[in-house]
Amino acid sequence: MKIKITELRKLTKSALLKKYSEFQANLISEVMLFGELSGKSSHGIVRLLIGKYSVMAQEPKGKPSLTKKTKVSSLVEGKGNPGILVGPIAMNEVIRLAKENGIGVVGTRDNFGSSGCLSYYLERIAKENLIAVVMAQSPVSIAPYGGMEPLFGTNPISFGIPANPKPLIFDMATSAIAFGAMVRARELGLKLPENVAIDKEGNVTTDPARAIEGGTLAFDNSYKGCGLAMMVEILAGIWPGADYAGLNIKGGWGNLFMAFSPDLLIGVDEFKKKAEQLIETIRNSKTKNGGKVRIPGENTIKKRDECLKTGEVEVDEKLVAQIKEFIKDEKE
Amino acid sequence: MKIKITELRKLTKSALLKKYSEFQANLISEVMLFGELSGKSSHGIVRLLIGKYSVMAQEPKGKPSLTKKTKVSSLVEGKGNPGILVGPIAMNEVIRLAKENGIGVVGTRDNFGSSGCLSYYLERIAKENLIAVVMAQSPVSIAPYGGMEPLFGTNPISFGIPANPKPLIFDMATSAIAFGAMVRARELGLKLPENVAIDKEGNVTTDPARAIEGGTLAFDNSYKGCGLAMMVEILAGIWPGADYAGLNIKGGWGNLFMAFSPDLLIGVDEFKKKAEQLIETIRNSKTKNGGKVRIPGENTIKKRDECLKTGEVEVDEKLVAQIKEFIKDEKE
Repeated sequence: MKIKITELRKLTKSALLKKYSEFQANLISEVMLFGELSGKSSHGIVRLLIGKYSVMAQEPKGKPSLTKKTKVSSLVEGKGNPGILVGPIAMNEVIRLAKENGIGVVGTRDNFGSSGCLSYYLERIAKENLIAVVMAQSPVSIAPYGGMEPLFGTNPISFGIPANPKPLIFDMATSAIAFGAMVRARELGLKLPENVAIDKEGNVTTDPARAIEGGTLAFDNSYKGCGLAMMVEILAGIWPGADYAGLNIKGGWGNLFMAFSPDLLIGVDEFKKKAEQLIETIRNSKTKNGGKVRIPGENTIKKRDECLKTGEVEVDEKLVAQIKEFIKDEKE
Repeated sequence: MKIKITELRKLTKSALLKKYSEFQANLISEVMLFGELSGKSSHGIVRLLIGKYSVMAQEPKGKPSLTKKTKVSSLVEGKGNPGILVGPIAMNEVIRLAKENGIGVVGTRDNFGSSGCLSYYLERIAKENLIAVVMAQSPVSIAPYGGMEPLFGTNPISFGIPANPKPLIFDMATSAIAFGAMVRARELGLKLPENVAIDKEGNVTTDPARAIEGGTLAFDNSYKGCGLAMMVEILAGIWPGADYAGLNIKGGWGNLFMAFSPDLLIGVDEFKKKAEQLIETIRNSKTKNGGKVRIPGENTIKKRDECLKTGEVEVDEKLVAQIKEFIKDEKE
């Protein structure tokens, strides 16, 4: 169904206000709406009520707080709050640090559940004329290359690049498939693509039920992709004191936010102009079929721009009904 | 042939002293020897005399110098010096910055030719109890995903992680094959592996001659690997003011060195202990054949340790003869 963006925001906020403050509900709903508007509904309002990692399923131990600060870094203690709330707090902090000192590094620990679309953070940081690098560690999914035990999360590594006229956003999971996509395939009776997952005997499988008991492969099914997944496990898991390979579960999910001012090396205007030049050179470079080369992140931005133009977004009808029911229950 | 390491160092330095100072010759020869001892002879003494990017083929415009300094960053002007000389200077600077302020970012521009084994820098930085991230930009090789024009270098992205008892080193090119490997295949009449390169019509080819006229593919032949290659082109090319996609050739080759103290987020001892625990968990995790899982970088370290134990290394006889001839010529 189509729904007005203002209406969806109101609904999302109303639901969130059950458990979270006005300030927190604003932070969370903006990340969720970004997911919906960008066509990444897997990171949208579905995260509100559904599943054990949903925002409403959580029992935070208090408000997230900044600890262990230096001039260039901060650690955010998530205290069991959703990643999608801890994320915006870390993002705002890393922007502040990098604006003041040229560089910021912010780690988060003890968050629970996904931080939502990393593109949200990347774009916000890059719009502040800062280079963004964001990584997220999550419960074990990927088996190491040559192994068959899930030891790394889906572990995205992602970049936001200030550029004219719009930031360049590149966000990639190091896993070949998301855990949620396997659950969905099982529920809908679908097969998985080839070479994305293994069963618990270590054999490649397209059966989602067997894959869920087994593990996923790295995006390239090679030591390179696995090595990158391992680096994210270390930098966004071990480093901020979060979980890593299931060895520190009470450390929760972890994130790493880094921001750098281009001015450290060349002027920001020169940087943005050259980034634009590179993007246009790639887009217009020769192709076999004569078409344009696709630039990372652009489809997402296009979808969002279209929604913002019409003021409406396509969402799952059942999800909206569920949220309305939830809000009504609360009122009674 | 086997040669004593002390003898190889002496020969390498003698050759370098023709053009470089004692200080510079020491820096360069250590990176070259690291390559030879690590079994990566493609980044060893072959870089001394052979080819247009060799250390001796270059005509530097002066000594590399540090410019544009902040408390957390420096830019190294390479002035046409070899990457393998500019690299150690940048490495020493990034270590100094990160020891003083917890973080260091050092870009290099206008270096010429490869920086040698990135593992050398990663290991040295990690042994200082600092997390290392090093990227290197080089002349165009990889075609963007969906395109057929080479626009990105072989563009490695690499990580050095402080760990007990030894640092963890993960160094990966984003290209599926090195340019040098294609040249070698052509000279030896060998075919390339499948799916590593394209001809100038954009068709996948195993013919090295056609591939050299065409371009290489990203390591995974997907938008993810290409996206990573593009990020390296931006962060190690555009950011320090080096070349990018052949659009700024006079900016030379570029590098980006980053170092972070684990202490910013958790204590360095805790970090190293947990990294060790992760490595051992991966190594001993279940495999289909009951063997151990291979850890990135360990084969390289093992080879080097064996050389250091015997004091000898296996090198190409013709190369050694060539270096000896070169030194003799100089003396006359």
